[in-house]
Amino acid sequence: MHNKTFLGVDTIYEKADIIINSIPYDGTASYKSGSKFAPDSIREHSLIGYETYSPKVDKDLDNLNICDLGNMEISYTDPGIVMDEITDFYNSLDLNKKIATIGGEHSITYGIIKSLIQKYDDLVIIQIDAHTDLREEYLGSRYSHASVMKRISELIGMENLYQLGIRSGTKEEFNSSKNIYKYDLEALDTVLKMCKNKHVYLTLDLDVLDPGYFPGTGTPESDGITSKELFDAIYKLNKINNNIVGFDMVELAPHYDPSYISTGLAIKVFRELLLSLG
Amino acid sequence: MHNKTFLGVDTIYEKADIIINSIPYDGTASYKSGSKFAPDSIREHSLIGYETYSPKVDKDLDNLNICDLGNMEISYTDPGIVMDEITDFYNSLDLNKKIATIGGEHSITYGIIKSLIQKYDDLVIIQIDAHTDLREEYLGSRYSHASVMKRISELIGMENLYQLGIRSGTKEEFNSSKNIYKYDLEALDTVLKMCKNKHVYLTLDLDVLDPGYFPGTGTPESDGITSKELFDAIYKLNKINNNIVGFDMVELAPHYDPSYISTGLAIKVFRELLLSLG
Amino acid sequence: MHNKTFLGVDTIYEKADIIINSIPYDGTASYKSGSKFAPDSIREHSLIGYETYSPKVDKDLDNLNICDLGNMEISYTDPGIVMDEITDFYNSLDLNKKIATIGGEHSITYGIIKSLIQKYDDLVIIQIDAHTDLREEYLGSRYSHASVMKRISELIGMENLYQLGIRSGTKEEFNSSKNIYKYDLEALDTVLKMCKNKHVYLTLDLDVLDPGYFPGTGTPESDGITSKELFDAIYKLNKINNNIVGFDMVELAPHYDPSYISTGLAIKVFRELLLSLG
Amino acid sequence: MHNKTFLGVDTIYEKADIIINSIPYDGTASYKSGSKFAPDSIREHSLIGYETYSPKVDKDLDNLNICDLGNMEISYTDPGIVMDEITDFYNSLDLNKKIATIGGEHSITYGIIKSLIQKYDDLVIIQIDAHTDLREEYLGSRYSHASVMKRISELIGMENLYQLGIRSGTKEEFNSSKNIYKYDLEALDTVLKMCKNKHVYLTLDLDVLDPGYFPGTGTPESDGITSKELFDAIYKLNKINNNIVGFDMVELAPHYDPSYISTGLAIKVFRELLLSLG
Amino acid sequence: MHNKTFLGVDTIYEKADIIINSIPYDGTASYKSGSKFAPDSIREHSLIGYETYSPKVDKDLDNLNICDLGNMEISYTDPGIVMDEITDFYNSLDLNKKIATIGGEHSITYGIIKSLIQKYDDLVIIQIDAHTDLREEYLGSRYSHASVMKRISELIGMENLYQLGIRSGTKEEFNSSKNIYKYDLEALDTVLKMCKNKHVYLTLDLDVLDPGYFPGTGTPESDGITSKELFDAIYKLNKINNNIVGFDMVELAPHYDPSYISTGLAIKVFRELLLSLG
Amino acid sequence: MHNKTFLGVDTIYEKADIIINSIPYDGTASYKSGSKFAPDSIREHSLIGYETYSPKVDKDLDNLNICDLGNMEISYTDPGIVMDEITDFYNSLDLNKKIATIGGEHSITYGIIKSLIQKYDDLVIIQIDAHTDLREEYLGSRYSHASVMKRISELIGMENLYQLGIRSGTKEEFNSSKNIYKYDLEALDTVLKMCKNKHVYLTLDLDVLDPGYFPGTGTPESDGITSKELFDAIYKLNKINNNIVGFDMVELAPHYDPSYISTGLAIKVFRELLLSLG
Repeated sequence: MHNKTFLGVDTIYEKADIIINSIPYDGTASYKSGSKFAPDSIREHSLIGYETYSPKVDKDLDNLNICDLGNMEISYTDPGIVMDEITDFYNSLDLNKKIATIGGEHSITYGIIKSLIQKYDDLVIIQIDAHTDLREEYLGSRYSHASVMKRISELIGMENLYQLGIRSGTKEEFNSSKNIYKYDLEALDTVLKMCKNKHVYLTLDLDVLDPGYFPGTGTPESDGITSKELFDAIYKLNKINNNIVGFDMVELAPHYDPSYISTGLAIKVFRELLLSLG
Repeated sequence: MHNKTFLGVDTIYEKADIIINSIPYDGTASYKSGSKFAPDSIREHSLIGYETYSPKVDKDLDNLNICDLGNMEISYTDPGIVMDEITDFYNSLDLNKKIATIGGEHSITYGIIKSLIQKYDDLVIIQIDAHTDLREEYLGSRYSHASVMKRISELIGMENLYQLGIRSGTKEEFNSSKNIYKYDLEALDTVLKMCKNKHVYLTLDLDVLDPGYFPGTGTPESDGITSKELFDAIYKLNKINNNIVGFDMVELAPHYDPSYISTGLAIKVFRELLLSLG
Repeated sequence: MHNKTFLGVDTIYEKADIIINSIPYDGTASYKSGSKFAPDSIREHSLIGYETYSPKVDKDLDNLNICDLGNMEISYTDPGIVMDEITDFYNSLDLNKKIATIGGEHSITYGIIKSLIQKYDDLVIIQIDAHTDLREEYLGSRYSHASVMKRISELIGMENLYQLGIRSGTKEEFNSSKNIYKYDLEALDTVLKMCKNKHVYLTLDLDVLDPGYFPGTGTPESDGITSKELFDAIYKLNKINNNIVGFDMVELAPHYDPSYISTGLAIKVFRELLLSLG
Repeated sequence: MHNKTFLGVDTIYEKADIIINSIPYDGTASYKSGSKFAPDSIREHSLIGYETYSPKVDKDLDNLNICDLGNMEISYTDPGIVMDEITDFYNSLDLNKKIATIGGEHSITYGIIKSLIQKYDDLVIIQIDAHTDLREEYLGSRYSHASVMKRISELIGMENLYQLGIRSGTKEEFNSSKNIYKYDLEALDTVLKMCKNKHVYLTLDLDVLDPGYFPGTGTPESDGITSKELFDAIYKLNKINNNIVGFDMVELAPHYDPSYISTGLAIKVFRELLLSLG
Repeated sequence: MHNKTFLGVDTIYEKADIIINSIPYDGTASYKSGSKFAPDSIREHSLIGYETYSPKVDKDLDNLNICDLGNMEISYTDPGIVMDEITDFYNSLDLNKKIATIGGEHSITYGIIKSLIQKYDDLVIIQIDAHTDLREEYLGSRYSHASVMKRISELIGMENLYQLGIRSGTKEEFNSSKNIYKYDLEALDTVLKMCKNKHVYLTLDLDVLDPGYFPGTGTPESDGITSKELFDAIYKLNKINNNIVGFDMVELAPHYDPSYISTGLAIKVFRELLLSLG
Repeated sequence: MHNKTFLGVDTIYEKADIIINSIPYDGTASYKSGSKFAPDSIREHSLIGYETYSPKVDKDLDNLNICDLGNMEISYTDPGIVMDEITDFYNSLDLNKKIATIGGEHSITYGIIKSLIQKYDDLVIIQIDAHTDLREEYLGSRYSHASVMKRISELIGMENLYQLGIRSGTKEEFNSSKNIYKYDLEALDTVLKMCKNKHVYLTLDLDVLDPGYFPGTGTPESDGITSKELFDAIYKLNKINNNIVGFDMVELAPHYDPSYISTGLAIKVFRELLLSLG
C-alpha cells in the first residue's frame, strides 16, 4: 500500500526543495467547523482524476522535488498550546526549503509565522481573504481565526501585512490598516512591486472565492472573486518566486460541499501554487 | 434567551423606520417547495458569521431604526384565504414605515400589493425575476407563484409593471407585456428614470440569479445573472430611495442547498436592500 | 416574535421548578464535531410536529413549571476556561430547582458537576453511554469528551459513578472501574436501588443508542440499544424522581443526519426526561 | 420507451382486478412537505433491484391482474377543491375493482372515502398510523393531514374507525375515541374479527414505522414499530382479503432520506399489500 | 399514464426529423460514476418547471418533429461488447434523421461514431470538453472515457477531430494533436469555417463547464467556462445547422449535485441544441 | 506520514497470520454503484473513534499478526478479465495465511474462490446475504453481482453452498437450491455442524442487514436482520475458527449513507470477524 501524498509527490525530505505539511486543526471554529478534514480530502481526491501537469504554465509537478510530510500531530486543547506546537514543528524544519501548508482553519498561520520571523526579519505577508481577521479577540480567544491577522500584525508590524480581496469586517477593522485592498486582487501587481526586495509569505484563505465556485467553507461570503481571478493572481506570483518563502492555503471545509468541487478547486490552486514556487 | 432577529436589529415597532416581516408560505408550490423555511434560515444564519456593516456603501444596519416582526401567522388552506390574511396584516401596519418582507414563495406579493394600493394610487412595481409569472392560472390556482404578476398587473395595470432579468416563460407570456427587459438588469437605469416621480415597490425573486450562485430555489433557471450584477442593481436603487415604499425578497428554498450559500447570499442581498432604504 | 423555547415552555425563572439550559460547545471534538448545533436544532424542531403530551405517562409539559434559559454564552478557547465558565454559570443558578441541560459534547458534564458537588456531598452519577470516557487524557486535553468521566470520578470517587450501556473502550478503561454495566440498561433497577438514599445526577450520552435509531452523533458505535430500551429506562427513573437533581443529554450532532430523526428522537427523550422530573 | 408502472404491472384497466392510482398532493403540509414526490420515487425505484415475487407468501405480482393508472391530475389550490377532484376521480372508477392508492399526504384519504361510502354503507376503516389525526382543524384548514381522520369519522361514525399503532396526539384527541389501540399492532387480530362481516378499507400512514426504519417522512415520531411488525400485520390481512375493498399508503417523503431506504421499504410494503388483495 | 419524454416531445419515429436516444452507461468510470442516471434525471426534471420555448432564438420545441426513443438497453459487461451494442443500435436507425444522444459517460461516443462513419466518409468531430480524452488506454480498458477520443481519432483521423475548451491532460496528450484549442470556445468560429463543407458531429462533455455552474459530474475540473459561454457557442452552431448530423451530451452525474442545478442546466443546453438542429 | 491500514494493524506480510486485501471494484453494478469506495472509507474511518479491543470477546487486534495489503490494482474493463486479475492475485499469496477481503461488489468473490479451490478440494461456502445471487446471467454479464453464487456453485457444487438470511430472489432462484435458509441466521448452528470437517469460506454481503442499520448499500432490501443478529452469528463462527480459511465482506456503498453509520458498522463487523479468525 502506497502512502497517499498530494498528487503522488514522492521526494524524500532530505532531497526536497519544497515541503508540504498539513495541520488538521479547527478548534476555534465556533460555527461551521470541518476544516480539519481538508488535508485528507485534498490528498485523497488529488489521486483520482487530477493531473500533475499544468497546461497554463507548461510545468509538471513530477519535475519538482517535493516532499509531503502528511498531517502533523496536534492537540485539541488550549489554542495557545496548539500554536506553540505548530511553531515548534516549523522550527524543526529546514527553513531553507520552501514551506507549503494545507490547513485547517486560518488561526494556524500565526503558529507558522512565529517560526518564520525567527529566520526572516524582513518578512512581509500577503493575505488573500474575504475577511479582515483583525479582531482584537473573538469568543474569548486571542488565537481565533477571526483575530489571526491582528496577532500576526503584532509580530511583523501592520505595515508589513498586505490584505487583498477583503469584503467583510467591522468598520473598526477596515479602519485599522492602510493596506487593505478591497473586493478583488487587482492591486496585487502594485503590492508585489512594493515588496520586491523582501521575503514574502502568502496566506490564502480560500473563502476569498465566491461561494458559487467554493461552497465548502465555514463562513461563505458572497460577492467574491471568480476562480479565474485567483488563478491569474497565482500566475503573477510565479514571476517573483525567488522571494516567496512559503504559503498556506486554509479554510476548506470539504463536507459542506457534497459535490466536492471545493476540494477539486483547492487541489488545482495548490498545484499551481507549488508550480509557482518551483 | 434573546429573540433571533435579522442580523440582530432591535428597534421597537413604534420607533422603527423600516419594518421587517416574513411570510413562511409555499402552499402553491407544485414541485420543489420549501421556501417556507427561508425566513428562519435567514435569521438564524445571519447571526453567525455575517456583519452589519457594508464596506461597499459604508453604512451599518446598527445606525438604522429597524424592527423585525418575525414570522406572521398564516393558514395552510385555500390560497385566496391566505392572500386575504396577508393583506389584512399589512393593512394593520403603519405604512408610513417602509416595508421589507422575506418570503415564502412569490405568490405572497399579491397579498402585499393589495394592501399597498390602498395607500398609493401611483404605485409602480419593479420585478427582478427569471420568470414572467404572467400565466392566467397555473395548476388550477389563480394565486399561484406562476401567475402572481398577472394578478398584480390586473390591480395596477400592466404598464406599471417593469420586469427585469426575465429569461423563461411561454411565448404568450412574453408577448403579453411591453415592459419585459430580458436576461439582465441593464435596463434598470432607464426604468428608474421612468418611474422617478412615482412610488416604487420592488419584488425580487432570487431565482433571477444564476443557479451557480443561488442553487437553493424551487425552479432554478440556468444562464442567469451573477451576484455582482444583482448587487450593482441594488446600489443603483440606493440613489432613488426616497421613492421606494418597500420590497420583498422571495423564493429562497434553503434545504435544496446543503452548503447554505444561497441563504448566505440572501442575507447579504437583504442587508444591502435595507441599507438602500435607510 | 416569540422566543423559541423547548416545546414552547414559558415559565419565568423565579416560578420555575425545572431549569433548561443549553451549552453549544464542541471544542474538544477532534473528529466529527457539530454537537454545538444540537440545542438550536432541538428547540426549532420541537415547535413543529411534536406534542407536549406523553400518552405513555399521561402527563403534559404544560402542567409543569419549566423555564428555558436558552444557550449560555461560552468561549471558544482553552477547554479548562470553558469548564470554569460552565461551573460559574451553574453556581449562579438556584440549585434547588432541578437542572436539565442540553449539550454540546460530553465534556460539559464536568463543568456542571464541579458546581453540583458544592451543594451535594453525596452525589452519585448514572452515566448512560456507549463509551467509557475514562481515558486519562485525549489528544493533549484532560477535558476531552473522551476523558470526562475520568475527571468526574476524581471529583466524586469512581465508586459513585455507575456506567450503563457501555460497549466501547480500551481494555484499560474497562478494567479501571467495577461499576461498568455493559451493552444494555438491564442493570438500571439494581443501580437505582443502590443509590436510593443519595442525590442522583443522570448524564445521558445519546450515542448509547444504536446508530440505526440515532445516526446524528460524532462517534456512532454500532450494536447499541433500541429507542424502546432507552424510553423504558426513563420510565423507571420516573419512580425515583425525588432523588434526581438534574440531568444532561449530550452528543447530538444534528447535521450528520439529513433526515433529522436524531433530533426528533432527542426531543422525545428530553420531553420524557422532563416529565420524569415533574 | 415503456411506461414506468409499479414493478412493471401491465394489465389494461378493463381486465384488471386491482387498480393502482397515485395522488401526488401535499398542499396542506405546513412543515416538511415532499410526499408529492412519493409516487414517482416508488415507481422508479421499483423497477430496479426489486422482485415481483414474495418468498414470504409465495406469490408473484405477475400472476395478478393489476392496472397502474399513474398519477392523477390534481390542482394546487383550495384543499376542499382538491378533495372534490379526488372524489370525482374515484367515482369515475369501477369500484368493483379493488383500489390501491399511493399518496401524497394523508389528507387524500378523505377524498377517497367520500367516494367509497357511496358504494359501501357498512364501511369500516382500519388506520395504521403514529398520529391520531383527529384534530378539529389545523392551521386554518379542516382538510389538513392532521384532521383527516376527524373528517372521515364524521362520514362513517367514530365507532367505525379503528386506529392502531398511535403514539402521538393531544390528550383531547386520545380521549375522543374508544377505538385507539396505542403503540403497536397487536390488537389487529381482535379488530379484524370485529369487522369480519363488513367492508374494510385500510389507510396506512407509513410514519407508524420507527424513524430508524423509515426516516423519509414529514413528521417522524420516534419509538415506533419495526418493519417486521408491519409486515406481520399485512400477512394477517391476507387472510380476510375478501372484505378489503382497497387501501392507501401515504406520507412517504422520499427526499428527506438520501439513502432511499424509505422508498425501498414502501415498495415492499405496497407489494405485500397488493399480494394480500389478490 | 403518459410516457416521460424530454420536455414532452411526442412525434412518432416515422414522422420525426430528429431522434433522441439515451444510453445509461457508465461502466468504465473508475472513480465517481453515476452518469447512467443522467437520462432519467433529465427527462423527469424537464417536465416540471422548464419551458419548450426559447426566448433567445424565439423558437419552440413544439414546432419541431422530434421523437424520443427513451433509454436503449445495454449490457453491463465487457466495454467492447457495449460499444458494439451501441453501434448496432445506431445502424438500425434511419440516419437521414438527425441524432441527439443523452449519455451516459463519454465512452459511448465511440459506439455512435462507428455507426456514423459508415454513412459519412467526410465526418469531422467537434469535441467540447475539459479533458483531452486522448490516452492510449486507461485502467486496462481501451474503451475508457479517458481514451475515447483517441479511439475515435483512429477512425476518422486526428486531423478531423477539433477539441475546444480543453484544460486538463498529460503533456503527451496535449502534444499528440494540433487541433486542441485550450481553455475556452473562442476558436469555434474558426473551426466552424474550416469544416464548412463537411458533415459535422458534436460531442459535448458537460464537464467543460466550470464546476460552479455544473457540479454534477464525475471529474469536475475547475477554471472552466461559464454557462453563458456555452450557450453562445450553441447559438453559433445554429447558423451552420445544415451540416450537423447529430450530437451527444455526456457526463452529467446528477446525484453528485443535490440541488439538481446541473440537471437543470443540461436540460436547457439540450433544448437549445435541439433548436439549433431544427 | 503513516500508511492508513485497517485499525492501524502493522504486521509485515512475512510474519502475518492473516492477510487483509481490498478490491475496489463495482463495474457490473448497473444501478446504484459505489462499493468501489468501501475500502478507503473503512480504513479512513477505522482510524478515528474506533477501538481495537472488543469487550464482547475480550480480545484485541493488537495481539494478532495481521498485514493489510491495501487496495489491489484492478482494471475497469471486461468483468471476465477483472475476475482473472483477482484470481491471479490470490494465487500469488501464501494461502496458508488466512485471507480477509474487503469489497467492492459481490462479483469479486468468484475471483477469490477460483484461487482457493486450487488449494482446498473440500471447500464449502457459507453465504450470508439478502439475495440469492443465483441468476444464470444479469444484464448481459455472467460475472454480475446478481449471478456470482451461480458461478461459484458451478465451481464447488450447489450442495457445498449454504445460503443464510436470504429474503429476495425470483421463484426460480429459490427453487434452484436446497441449501437456502431464509430470513434469518438461526440455521447457522446446524450449518456449521454440517461442515465441521471441511474447509469453510465465508462470504458476507452486508445487505443482509436491515437497511435501518445499514442504509449504505446498492440494493437495500427491507425486513432484514438486526446488527445484533449478525454479531451473534459472528461469535458462533469464533468457535470453529480452525476451519475457516478466509472471508470477504462486500457491498458497502458508503456514499449512499451521509451519516456513515454503515461504514461504522462494517468496521466493527470486520474487526469481530478478524478476531474470530485469530
